[in-house]
Amino acid sequence: MRPDQLRKLLASVKAGKTPVGAALDALRQLPFEDLGFAKVDHHRELRTGSPEVIYGPGKTPQQVARIGQAVARRGHALLATRLEPLAAAALLLALPKAEHHVRARAVTLEGRPPLKKRGLVAVLCAGTSDIPVAEEARLTAELMGCRVDPHYDVGVAGLHRLLARMPGIRKADALVVAAGMEGALPSVVGGLTGAPLIAVPTSVGYGASFGGLSALLTMMNSCAAGVAVVNIDNGFGAGYLAAKIARR
Amino acid sequence: MRPDQLRKLLASVKAGKTPVGAALDALRQLPFEDLGFAKVDHHRELRTGSPEVIYGPGKTPQQVARIGQAVARRGHALLATRLEPLAAAALLLALPKAEHHVRARAVTLEGRPPLKKRGLVAVLCAGTSDIPVAEEARLTAELMGCRVDPHYDVGVAGLHRLLARMPGIRKADALVVAAGMEGALPSVVGGLTGAPLIAVPTSVGYGASFGGLSALLTMMNSCAAGVAVVNIDNGFGAGYLAAKIARR
Amino acid sequence: MRPDQLRKLLASVKAGKTPVGAALDALRQLPFEDLGFAKVDHHRELRTGSPEVIYGPGKTPQQVARIGQAVARRGHALLATRLEPLAAAALLLALPKAEHHVRARAVTLEGRPPLKKRGLVAVLCAGTSDIPVAEEARLTAELMGCRVDPHYDVGVAGLHRLLARMPGIRKADALVVAAGMEGALPSVVGGLTGAPLIAVPTSVGYGASFGGLSALLTMMNSCAAGVAVVNIDNGFGAGYLAAKIARR
Amino acid sequence: MRPDQLRKLLASVKAGKTPVGAALDALRQLPFEDLGFAKVDHHRELRTGSPEVIYGPGKTPQQVARIGQAVARRGHALLATRLEPLAAAALLLALPKAEHHVRARAVTLEGRPPLKKRGLVAVLCAGTSDIPVAEEARLTAELMGCRVDPHYDVGVAGLHRLLARMPGIRKADALVVAAGMEGALPSVVGGLTGAPLIAVPTSVGYGASFGGLSALLTMMNSCAAGVAVVNIDNGFGAGYLAAKIARR
Amino acid sequence: MRPDQLRKLLASVKAGKTPVGAALDALRQLPFEDLGFAKVDHHRELRTGSPEVIYGPGKTPQQVARIGQAVARRGHALLATRLEPLAAAALLLALPKAEHHVRARAVTLEGRPPLKKRGLVAVLCAGTSDIPVAEEARLTAELMGCRVDPHYDVGVAGLHRLLARMPGIRKADALVVAAGMEGALPSVVGGLTGAPLIAVPTSVGYGASFGGLSALLTMMNSCAAGVAVVNIDNGFGAGYLAAKIARR
Amino acid sequence: MRPDQLRKLLASVKAGKTPVGAALDALRQLPFEDLGFAKVDHHRELRTGSPEVIYGPGKTPQQVARIGQAVARRGHALLATRLEPLAAAALLLALPKAEHHVRARAVTLEGRPPLKKRGLVAVLCAGTSDIPVAEEARLTAELMGCRVDPHYDVGVAGLHRLLARMPGIRKADALVVAAGMEGALPSVVGGLTGAPLIAVPTSVGYGASFGGLSALLTMMNSCAAGVAVVNIDNGFGAGYLAAKIARR
Amino acid sequence: MRPDQLRKLLASVKAGKTPVGAALDALRQLPFEDLGFAKVDHHRELRTGSPEVIYGPGKTPQQVARIGQAVARRGHALLATRLEPLAAAALLLALPKAEHHVRARAVTLEGRPPLKKRGLVAVLCAGTSDIPVAEEARLTAELMGCRVDPHYDVGVAGLHRLLARMPGIRKADALVVAAGMEGALPSVVGGLTGAPLIAVPTSVGYGASFGGLSALLTMMNSCAAGVAVVNIDNGFGAGYLAAKIARR
Amino acid sequence: MRPDQLRKLLASVKAGKTPVGAALDALRQLPFEDLGFAKVDHHRELRTGSPEVIYGPGKTPQQVARIGQAVARRGHALLATRLEPLAAAALLLALPKAEHHVRARAVTLEGRPPLKKRGLVAVLCAGTSDIPVAEEARLTAELMGCRVDPHYDVGVAGLHRLLARMPGIRKADALVVAAGMEGALPSVVGGLTGAPLIAVPTSVGYGASFGGLSALLTMMNSCAAGVAVVNIDNGFGAGYLAAKIARR
Repeated sequence: MRPDQLRKLLASVKAGKTPVGAALDALRQLPFEDLGFAKVDHHRELRTGSPEVIYGPGKTPQQVARIGQAVARRGHALLATRLEPLAAAALLLALPKAEHHVRARAVTLEGRPPLKKRGLVAVLCAGTSDIPVAEEARLTAELMGCRVDPHYDVGVAGLHRLLARMPGIRKADALVVAAGMEGALPSVVGGLTGAPLIAVPTSVGYGASFGGLSALLTMMNSCAAGVAVVNIDNGFGAGYLAAKIARR
Repeated sequence: MRPDQLRKLLASVKAGKTPVGAALDALRQLPFEDLGFAKVDHHRELRTGSPEVIYGPGKTPQQVARIGQAVARRGHALLATRLEPLAAAALLLALPKAEHHVRARAVTLEGRPPLKKRGLVAVLCAGTSDIPVAEEARLTAELMGCRVDPHYDVGVAGLHRLLARMPGIRKADALVVAAGMEGALPSVVGGLTGAPLIAVPTSVGYGASFGGLSALLTMMNSCAAGVAVVNIDNGFGAGYLAAKIARR
Repeated sequence: MRPDQLRKLLASVKAGKTPVGAALDALRQLPFEDLGFAKVDHHRELRTGSPEVIYGPGKTPQQVARIGQAVARRGHALLATRLEPLAAAALLLALPKAEHHVRARAVTLEGRPPLKKRGLVAVLCAGTSDIPVAEEARLTAELMGCRVDPHYDVGVAGLHRLLARMPGIRKADALVVAAGMEGALPSVVGGLTGAPLIAVPTSVGYGASFGGLSALLTMMNSCAAGVAVVNIDNGFGAGYLAAKIARR
Repeated sequence: MRPDQLRKLLASVKAGKTPVGAALDALRQLPFEDLGFAKVDHHRELRTGSPEVIYGPGKTPQQVARIGQAVARRGHALLATRLEPLAAAALLLALPKAEHHVRARAVTLEGRPPLKKRGLVAVLCAGTSDIPVAEEARLTAELMGCRVDPHYDVGVAGLHRLLARMPGIRKADALVVAAGMEGALPSVVGGLTGAPLIAVPTSVGYGASFGGLSALLTMMNSCAAGVAVVNIDNGFGAGYLAAKIARR
Repeated sequence: MRPDQLRKLLASVKAGKTPVGAALDALRQLPFEDLGFAKVDHHRELRTGSPEVIYGPGKTPQQVARIGQAVARRGHALLATRLEPLAAAALLLALPKAEHHVRARAVTLEGRPPLKKRGLVAVLCAGTSDIPVAEEARLTAELMGCRVDPHYDVGVAGLHRLLARMPGIRKADALVVAAGMEGALPSVVGGLTGAPLIAVPTSVGYGASFGGLSALLTMMNSCAAGVAVVNIDNGFGAGYLAAKIARR
Repeated sequence: MRPDQLRKLLASVKAGKTPVGAALDALRQLPFEDLGFAKVDHHRELRTGSPEVIYGPGKTPQQVARIGQAVARRGHALLATRLEPLAAAALLLALPKAEHHVRARAVTLEGRPPLKKRGLVAVLCAGTSDIPVAEEARLTAELMGCRVDPHYDVGVAGLHRLLARMPGIRKADALVVAAGMEGALPSVVGGLTGAPLIAVPTSVGYGASFGGLSALLTMMNSCAAGVAVVNIDNGFGAGYLAAKIARR
Repeated sequence: MRPDQLRKLLASVKAGKTPVGAALDALRQLPFEDLGFAKVDHHRELRTGSPEVIYGPGKTPQQVARIGQAVARRGHALLATRLEPLAAAALLLALPKAEHHVRARAVTLEGRPPLKKRGLVAVLCAGTSDIPVAEEARLTAELMGCRVDPHYDVGVAGLHRLLARMPGIRKADALVVAAGMEGALPSVVGGLTGAPLIAVPTSVGYGASFGGLSALLTMMNSCAAGVAVVNIDNGFGAGYLAAKIARR
Repeated sequence: MRPDQLRKLLASVKAGKTPVGAALDALRQLPFEDLGFAKVDHHRELRTGSPEVIYGPGKTPQQVARIGQAVARRGHALLATRLEPLAAAALLLALPKAEHHVRARAVTLEGRPPLKKRGLVAVLCAGTSDIPVAEEARLTAELMGCRVDPHYDVGVAGLHRLLARMPGIRKADALVVAAGMEGALPSVVGGLTGAPLIAVPTSVGYGASFGGLSALLTMMNSCAAGVAVVNIDNGFGAGYLAAKIARR
């Protein structure tokens, strides 16, 4: 039941056509979305600025392509992540205007009309192996209408590279910092900047890195204020939140 | 070496009093802060808007009071957290204008001059036992110059209470959501709102809650986008980050 | 807004006193509970048969007594669990008709009018140290109107004691089985009976029992079908669910 | 020794043909099942209403087919779970009347005579990736003679979809709720319904979901009463227990 | 129902006083122990050679003393472990002939008549902090009728002390080896001896010893054959099993 | 330096050919094994009764065959475990008299002369999936000269099958009990028997069985005395220790 | 900005060509590495004695070969670790003078000019499966200019082999000790020697070895002083640190 | 048997008083330490330069004082760690020349004659709460004859403080770096220095720091080469190893 339908019901009550009791029953039963709770409708809100996301694992190339076409038909921006090569190929075939991002294992398609750029997100990562996660964050923030400055391979074991980048990093409205292994980068960056910082542990590492758990705990315990953490390898989530912050 | 000292050194070089080689050596050795890296100096940056924080555990009442007085003398806002009753008493004695917040086990003192309010932070918590953590977040955000709307005891097992509060919650610029036990509240709220959401797992629970670990994992795995997590019981960190976001 | 208020609103629309637009706005904003979503209102549903529960830890004796009195005034059954001795004393003082159950560290008060007994719950526990948890389950199920048969100290290391009790146990409509240490009892009982079985790991044990985690994992992995598990030491939850099943 | 054999022995004692001492010895030695402990015999009890289950992993297609034929010959209902495609094919070849359920990776065969339907089980799952586990629960409950209402993809991040389904869900006699990632769905549903709820954590997720451990802990710590948990991905166990409850 | 009662029943059947049907019913219902399953009756078997054990924690001094008296009255050997000082005092008061073992926090009383000594158990421990656990093992094995050779403080960091003791250690029929911290002693001893070896991890250590978990894992992974492990700090269990082996 | 060499040195000292100081130096430096420490030499001790073991994983078929031939040449008993099919084939080709045990993934060869049988080991397992581990234990104990009684598929969910086997099980001198999933079997059996019991957790299970960790913890926490535990899936270790006990 | 550029700037200030304010600005902004912080520049420091390292996993054969050529052109020593066979082949093809170390899965190339040997490192490992990790340590230390004595297969279950090697081991300036399974070797060796000891847990083992975690915890808790630990399987890190110590 | 006794035995053989066979037997049995294995004797080696250590926990003040006096009588340096105030007082009373270090909860006494200073150890810690652990390292290294430079409160969240200290830190021969919470300091320092670095995780932190486990994992996964880790809070072990390295 959409707002106009509700309006009709009330008019019908007013006109004496629908008894009060029957209207009461109808109102009690109606699905919440039919009440026009635009804010309840997560999807509608997302449409204003956020890309629709296809999470690749567990989907066939056919499914990925079909979902992608549906999204594109509605003019929404599209972000497809963690795509196997075949799934990426199928999607690109279906959406000739889409772009392939090999390092991020992602395919993107700008929404129509494109969003006006607002806000600057800096995306940092510690090592070259963290780049796929960082790229996922970058693509997400860009599709959501932010400018993004990437600063890759600035891990704490070569501190001078990071320090040399700080003037640029300090200009960002929000930061995404991805790191695996010991995950120390967000603590160091958080101490050198003032902008909100979203930390992403990555599953990069071996031995006692336990698939990213070590980096996750490090980031959780960061002694720098202004740092919050998303799930292991969740570049999308970090980029999404950073873009929301940067665009405010 | 402060900027004026550096200026003097350069002037002395210009005047021919200091040879270039000696100046070169001096510059190479100097502590970075002396170069005037205002942005490197975390403390200075914090002074513009953030309270100074005294973390209570492990400090004697005397130490707490002494640090508190030093902060107050500089005119900074003060937030003292997790205070034992005696430490709180000592601090209140030392700072007659400070306020005691019993539920948050905190003492606060506004900075001089007080900050102009900007931005609205909503602080939610799932159960009454989560209130101390939520209060710590609320006090932090208020001291940082935000207006704060508390929405306590809106856990997911009594969903109607949460839904009834949603219109107010949706007005916030940033959200802090604290929950212990199963920690499901941020996922539900994240699906109902669009603002950046900082989730705080609390150590509330028993049995397999493992001191907050269960809630932490839940929040890490949240299926709602736009959610990031801080450490268990870290109300300060959540309030700090939410305030930063809300004031942008 | 209660149902009668809603009825009034609709009548007012019918009478032309409230314009359709204004009614529409009112309906969109109203808290869900005001719509009379009886089923949404967890509390109301609980009142028909379930005791109200006071979880003792973290509450002062005064708070426990005050909540208890409020519940009693409404005529509801009351179950107060994990009470420190002083809290139990305060509650008993406030509610002279309440009963003290020392082993379960609980205080109970029957609702008015008392529920008609229906359904039989068998409560088993492995060792004498598991009895407090078992008793919490027993009291819960009794307050919810079930007959309860306790079978304590029937752990698997003395199998003949358990086997001797099986004829009685098989008569139950639902079972609660509490065990600490290795937590093997539910698997054995589940293989000998056909009724739904709720397993409760207890924190009883030492060394590698890890506060009940070992028993919890054992029960999770039970090779017997028809077994489900609640949180460590959660006698209330097990008794509550078993009573629900038994009374159907 | 079956009951009739025992009867013969006693008759023989009565007739003086078997001395008391010899009967005593015979009775002491006899295997328990020979005493006619029908209730001890798990298998016999299962035959009245429960399907026989073939757990696929670790069995060759030949073994699966051969076991399936043996079950079918006895007229029992059959549920074969987690079948590799070849094993499913072999079983279908052997049992032409069996049905293949691709999403659940299961094959079923109704018992003869079919059970009379009794009781309604609602099976919910949070995301599309949880459907295989939910389907396993659905098939199990159906084979045990329950009607089953599936409600899939009603996760808490899109709460309106769940709320829209609540009227139907509330009609069920028992609920199965499957969820991976943060596993919050059972807590929310448990707060909105009154029927016994069996929660199934699924291994769906990535990063810190740790193969379902995160969802398991969430469900264990559920703040909603009336919820119990089975092993990760154990759709069969959940469906089995829910059907037992619903048919009472 | 004891064997003589069963004999009476059968006689009564023979005499025609009890109908076959009634006897059949009686036999089906009877508790297993009444069938004279001496071997099923764990307690009876224990009485021949094993001490009765009182596990101290969670018992009041009064309870400990009362149980102790009951055991002593039956002439059984008694082992009371992990006693608080007051409980030990109460027990010694109640049983003047009992012995106090301060380091093991235990009280023992020989059974009547005393067991003839048979078999030799060697009890080793790595450090002086492991002695309480080792002593618990020693007392247990002695009460079960074994001779016991203690070899304490022979940890692997001072290997010469261990090697100097090997000739004596090699004479034992079974070994108990207790160690905390890194728990390496059983692996080393297992490689130097041929007798069955029961390893006991102790909770001695700090930091990453995690209350004995580190030592437990070490022992589980021992590369020496012929080693098995009991629970953390379970000196009783190790001494019990070693004595059983040594007395064969 | 072998004993005869040592004897020569001493004779040379006696004859005045070697000065005391030189002999002293020689003795101080000599490798321990050269002193003829037969008991230190693990391998020598093993040769009297124990099979030599080839652990298959990580070895090529060629390596397995070559080691096997070397062992056979010395007349030792051989046990090769966890063999890939190709490695088993290569070994059987190289040792025509060796036997292949498909379920245990093992190859065995009796030593020459064969050991005289002594002692009886009972090997139990809970489910059919645990049989490979149980078979590894059985083969080990047999090669070490014990008679072995297997009792497979006697898990606690079908207790009557276990109870029916107890008379036979009680005759054993030592028991091996293998179980996966919840691992409850050793506790139950330990309560019904008096012989030393070696428990083997297996990695059988899914979900929260965590590769055998759940079963391991269960067994560690067994409430039955006389139980000790070896590593997950370590059938060899359990059979080895049980045989040692049974042959004493 | 290199030192000579800085010198130019200062000269320009002296000459009055650059105003003091402009020089101040330039100095504040300059990247740290341009200041000639030789010690900050991790890479430069490494060049004096340390090999450049290519960590194989995640790199294509082409990438490995290309990086290797770049390193070789600069005359640096090269260590490529954990190479897949194809990557090793590609590297060897590109660098004809490089050496392949099959057991260590590594390729090395001496720097030009070769380092003068200084210091002795002993590399021990417990079992033959630990050899790849030990070899990685050995190659690293050799490339860094140390002599290395390998002592492999000296695990604690065959103590005499270790003791026989001690005289040689005691000559080393630093020790690397690699062990999997129970990881006890460093504790034993640490008690027998005085040189700094770097322990490397390996992922060798099964069951409860948890991919090296068990060995890691053992080593962390070593009761021998003078022991420190690197990550699981991190032969490179251990060899690197030991060489640094030995060459001092 | 001391060397002189061995000499006597050999002389007696030479003189023909002891037959060769008897000498052979005596030699086979003798405890290793009696052979004069100076290198085996850990204690003797320690006496040359290392302090004797009293680990306070679990010892009474009397025991601490008595051990302290015994050490002092032998002229050894003494380090007593983790002392309760009463134990410290008792020790100071017994050893008037000993020094009390309140922050490190330690008491020290120089050996006689004092060691000649050699080598420089830098001890860093991240926060003021880590100082007790850092001080324990400092005292240990000083007692072992090193000069020690403390650099406290130089955590990565205030990077400028650390960078300002680097010139001094780079002069050290070995480093101890203690940090709790996220434990990132060793990675950063390791990237800025070339000396061997011993990292000490401390138990400082809250929430998901899990008593130092988070910091331990961080350090294990350090991306800087040349870093090794000791147990949580093990300042003694770190100082001991660093001093050994620095004095080489």
